[in-house]
Amino acid sequence: MAFAQSLTQLEIPTKGKGFTRLNERIETWLRSKDIEQGVLHLTCLHTSCSLTINENADPRVLKDLAAWMEAVVPQDGKGPADAQGQRRRYLHDDEGDDDMPAHIRTALTSQTMTLSVQNGRLLLGTWQAVYLWEHRQLGSTRRVACHLIGEKPATSTQASSSQATATRLTTTQTASNQTLLNLRNATRLNQQIQDRIQPEAWAEDGGNATDVDLLIDRLHDISDP
Amino acid sequence: MAFAQSLTQLEIPTKGKGFTRLNERIETWLRSKDIEQGVLHLTCLHTSCSLTINENADPRVLKDLAAWMEAVVPQDGKGPADAQGQRRRYLHDDEGDDDMPAHIRTALTSQTMTLSVQNGRLLLGTWQAVYLWEHRQLGSTRRVACHLIGEKPATSTQASSSQATATRLTTTQTASNQTLLNLRNATRLNQQIQDRIQPEAWAEDGGNATDVDLLIDRLHDISDP
Amino acid sequence: MAFAQSLTQLEIPTKGKGFTRLNERIETWLRSKDIEQGVLHLTCLHTSCSLTINENADPRVLKDLAAWMEAVVPQDGKGPADAQGQRRRYLHDDEGDDDMPAHIRTALTSQTMTLSVQNGRLLLGTWQAVYLWEHRQLGSTRRVACHLIGEKPATSTQASSSQATATRLTTTQTASNQTLLNLRNATRLNQQIQDRIQPEAWAEDGGNATDVDLLIDRLHDISDP
Repeated sequence: MAFAQSLTQLEIPTKGKGFTRLNERIETWLRSKDIEQGVLHLTCLHTSCSLTINENADPRVLKDLAAWMEAVVPQDGKGPADAQGQRRRYLHDDEGDDDMPAHIRTALTSQTMTLSVQNGRLLLGTWQAVYLWEHRQLGSTRRVACHLIGEKPATSTQASSSQATATRLTTTQTASNQTLLNLRNATRLNQQIQDRIQPEAWAEDGGNATDVDLLIDRLHDISDP
Repeated sequence: MAFAQSLTQLEIPTKGKGFTRLNERIETWLRSKDIEQGVLHLTCLHTSCSLTINENADPRVLKDLAAWMEAVVPQDGKGPADAQGQRRRYLHDDEGDDDMPAHIRTALTSQTMTLSVQNGRLLLGTWQAVYLWEHRQLGSTRRVACHLIGEKPATSTQASSSQATATRLTTTQTASNQTLLNLRNATRLNQQIQDRIQPEAWAEDGGNATDVDLLIDRLHDISDP
Repeated sequence: MAFAQSLTQLEIPTKGKGFTRLNERIETWLRSKDIEQGVLHLTCLHTSCSLTINENADPRVLKDLAAWMEAVVPQDGKGPADAQGQRRRYLHDDEGDDDMPAHIRTALTSQTMTLSVQNGRLLLGTWQAVYLWEHRQLGSTRRVACHLIGEKPATSTQASSSQATATRLTTTQTASNQTLLNLRNATRLNQQIQDRIQPEAWAEDGGNATDVDLLIDRLHDISDP
């Protein structure tokens, strides 16, 4: 039989509010499953952290995103201002001022997510990474269900193999040459970033422009997507 | 062949703005399908209500969440304040002041959602429930597509059974003993809440602390997730 | 074997900020795959545009939705006001004032989405359409991964065919006669709109009420969903 499924729960330690990149953890698990093509379903098993896909290269995007959320759903235990400009305390406040805002932030982002697996790897855009977004002030160990359904390479039926080939050809034919060229350049440059990236590096150097930052800026300048 | 699929539409009556818990309806349908492991895809078939996963125990979380949405996307027929503090009426206002805000609230939450099914049951975190969030003032009958793809226990292939076993072992091995202990305690206590919970009870008693409320508070205090 | 999968990337040209309806592109691709029942997974492969499902008939809904987002996540390169009413510039500003807001808008909407396919077509509510929401000022060519897993009509197993029939009967039995009547009327009228709709028509005539607009208003008046 060609289709198979596998379900596990990844344990993700978080260090408090912020983004934990899941790509590498997921990719490692994917490799152990030997599925060539399929879909990966992620479920965040908590109500005060969530899933999101966003920029994988420039850490300033995540900082700005976090700052926006901080301003719109502040974690001081009080809700938004009413028409008179008054902010009342949340009813649910037993777990700390940051808890109810964490539930709201969870509702505004993704609790579940489905990604394609192609050639045994996550199919993501050049600039995309999958993050667990911790909304509580203190970190903890979070669990994300990873559920893979797909086909193994060895047991692929002739029918679905030829279908995959046909699909690849169609994609190639509908993409313009210029688009493909841009994608190839951006992908290659982004790969160099991904190979070097240390998400904490930018914070550690106090936010000053590093070589990596400058390379990211240049990358964004010259690429479309 | 082990994989099978089943698609139905649940009819969910809503009583106006608020949250309708779907877990029990979904679980009942799941049991009738006899799928041991698989994925469940939910699609909300409307544009003025949506899906969300959030706290299953303390009804104050849902009240605070609703109040936040009320403040940020109010249902008085007018959009957010511009730079001069003026709020203009929505263009789409034929269906009532609450309709356009309902479309916006839908866009900010989930229109579709995918969950894992394990041992014939929804795989959710201890504190999670799946809700249909009605955004209109008046309730109506809402439809949610439930689409299940998975494997039946009797016809599971040897390969995928042993894979499932291996996965379970891996999960056990990577979870620390302390984490597992906390999860077991929280799960057992939460189960007692779920067995007793009447979502309307808290509202009916005027918001005063009931035994259930106090138990919920205590539960959150002593558990990590 | 009954189950098969197919994965492609649709190239979606956008003309700048706004909504591009994907239904027709997706349906065309679906027809070429000959899957009777299954699930379709969409992944937006970018971090400055996203996916959403909303109203398919009245273009004013999309205009109001865009205006709301413009007010709450403005694209002038500055974040939300702090407690002192000050708005600071985003750190990530190399790609233009509209770029960081586009990342935030992406986080607030859907990066992935799963839909059911029934009788070879997308299963959507009467008033629903799937949109790619471009958040950048200038359009570009966007890619959306379309991943279909399902069963072909010819090779459907007896078991799953009879299951599908049983599901259809169950749905019919649980739906009240009045609900079904309303759905049939709304669906038929909406189909007439969909046949005639030109998303640009409303904008072109300066927002004055056209025949289509008036028909939409009447439609919403008389139908429940």
